Amino acid sequence: MPDRLGPKLDAPLFDKAVIVGVGLIGSSLLRVARSQGLARELVAVDRSGDVCARASELGLADRVTDDAALAAQNADLVILCTPVGAIGDVAAQIGPHLSAGCIVSDVGSVKSAVVTAVEPHLPPGVFFVPAHPVAGTEYSGPDAGFATLFHQRWCILTPPEGADAGAVEKLTAFWAAAGSKVEIMTPAHHDLVLAITSHVPHLIAFNIVGTAADLEEVTQSEVIKFSAGGFRDFTRIAASDPTMWRDIFLHNREAVLEMLGRFNEDLAALQRMIRWGDGQGLHDLFTRTRAIRRSIIEQGQETAAADFGRRTVADPPADQ
Amino acid sequence: MPDRLGPKLDAPLFDKAVIVGVGLIGSSLLRVARSQGLARELVAVDRSGDVCARASELGLADRVTDDAALAAQNADLVILCTPVGAIGDVAAQIGPHLSAGCIVSDVGSVKSAVVTAVEPHLPPGVFFVPAHPVAGTEYSGPDAGFATLFHQRWCILTPPEGADAGAVEKLTAFWAAAGSKVEIMTPAHHDLVLAITSHVPHLIAFNIVGTAADLEEVTQSEVIKFSAGGFRDFTRIAASDPTMWRDIFLHNREAVLEMLGRFNEDLAALQRMIRWGDGQGLHDLFTRTRAIRRSIIEQGQETAAADFGRRTVADPPADQ
Repeated sequence: MPDRLGPKLDAPLFDKAVIVGVGLIGSSLLRVARSQGLARELVAVDRSGDVCARASELGLADRVTDDAALAAQNADLVILCTPVGAIGDVAAQIGPHLSAGCIVSDVGSVKSAVVTAVEPHLPPGVFFVPAHPVAGTEYSGPDAGFATLFHQRWCILTPPEGADAGAVEKLTAFWAAAGSKVEIMTPAHHDLVLAITSHVPHLIAFNIVGTAADLEEVTQSEVIKFSAGGFRDFTRIAASDPTMWRDIFLHNREAVLEMLGRFNEDLAALQRMIRWGDGQGLHDLFTRTRAIRRSIIEQGQETAAADFGRRTVADPPADQ
Repeated sequence: MPDRLGPKLDAPLFDKAVIVGVGLIGSSLLRVARSQGLARELVAVDRSGDVCARASELGLADRVTDDAALAAQNADLVILCTPVGAIGDVAAQIGPHLSAGCIVSDVGSVKSAVVTAVEPHLPPGVFFVPAHPVAGTEYSGPDAGFATLFHQRWCILTPPEGADAGAVEKLTAFWAAAGSKVEIMTPAHHDLVLAITSHVPHLIAFNIVGTAADLEEVTQSEVIKFSAGGFRDFTRIAASDPTMWRDIFLHNREAVLEMLGRFNEDLAALQRMIRWGDGQGLHDLFTRTRAIRRSIIEQGQETAAADFGRRTVADPPADQ
């Protein structure tokens, strides 16, 4: 295992950790939990037989099953990694089988709706600590995961008021051992922050790709050929998992519509600057936005390499 | 020089090639022209003394000057690589000094406005063949360029009706030797195609970064920390050169406003789907947009590596 995830722990944090949903995030969690020795027993659950078969082939867990209820028995950690829209059903399935002292968490990109969907199904004595690792790629499924996905990324925990401090501490230790930095906030604030840093950016990426695909004056072949002018950057996040993203928008509706309203106001102002030839206004905005990227790079959340370093991937740079 | 730009030509295409404006594109052109042997003499022109000094230090040309008029004398190729808003002035300066038979071109991201600005200043016998290499990075200036920038990217030529076939052919050979694929279209069609594949994507990227920076409920520090959720992708193109982009929007106003209108209509429909909980509509769009990226990858305009391969740049993947 790479050094940069830090040394293995002296002893596993959990006896039986159960990951429900073996997609990009779930399979990455299984990989890092295995390589960092975070649990004595790792159980993977997926309702799809194909995914279970593939998870077994990949050796992602000590046990793979499609039976969430069975898997949950005697677990001291269960992390729900399904799309947000399915999470309430899974909670209902496992609730009656959970033992007191078990920590239940998730990795959903929205938090208020997850709390509402999950909490009613959990018996007393079970600690619910919702989480959201802000990490991912445009790929999905058990093959897409990798152990370093969470390295240097933030994981946001949204424990309910009066949450058990020991449970929060233990889940924090789990994410830290996976390479993450942990931040705590309320579900409502999380949903607002992610609406602007993730959900609305995805929405406008999906939208521009859709707009481009529907034009008659410009052919789809032209859109593809000349995509290096900027468009192709948007296609990355517009290639993300459709089910996951449908659920996010349906379950963070208020915050997304609020942030989208602000985006639209600002875009109308920008549109007006173009129509009326306000070059100074355009230049001022474009100068301000340049500075934000520098901060993101300085804080280790982005590469400084030109073009995301893409050139070095598809086409290694030569000595000049 | 890397093999993938192809073998050097048997003989240079031009005797004296002049590049006016030594930024990302101009300095990349100088580098590839030098390494591929495309001209017997290479002259670099920039109105900034600092840029001239740096171009000399970097050894980008045989001669570096701030005097465009002098440089243009006896040239058989002049490529204008300034921001679009400055291009008419440069044409006015060099026009009286151009020799019959000289090919004048440019690299501007808009074409109709460039034709209008440049053509009146060119004497008879000079061949004007506007061009636009669809390539770039978020960095600018003479240090940002590199010889392989145009490799496998499209270069669009927009020769006027009745243009000299020999001149078009020679400029095509120049861009092909620089690694580009060449396509020919009218200036008006170019401006429409680029409005959707480049200009509007940049506009909405500038806009979302501005919206995020102005929030009060979400701090700028939070926006930066959690940018890996998607936002950071937009900051790359929102970090592009402010002057260049101001000029593009001011000089491709009609096409940008037309495409922005369509984007806005589609976004309103998407907003409505979210408000009314139309999960099927969202899922359908998100499935369609996923396919477009696949085509872009298949046609060699994008890397298939997850996350643009960023992980392999900032943080090499480990054996898992």
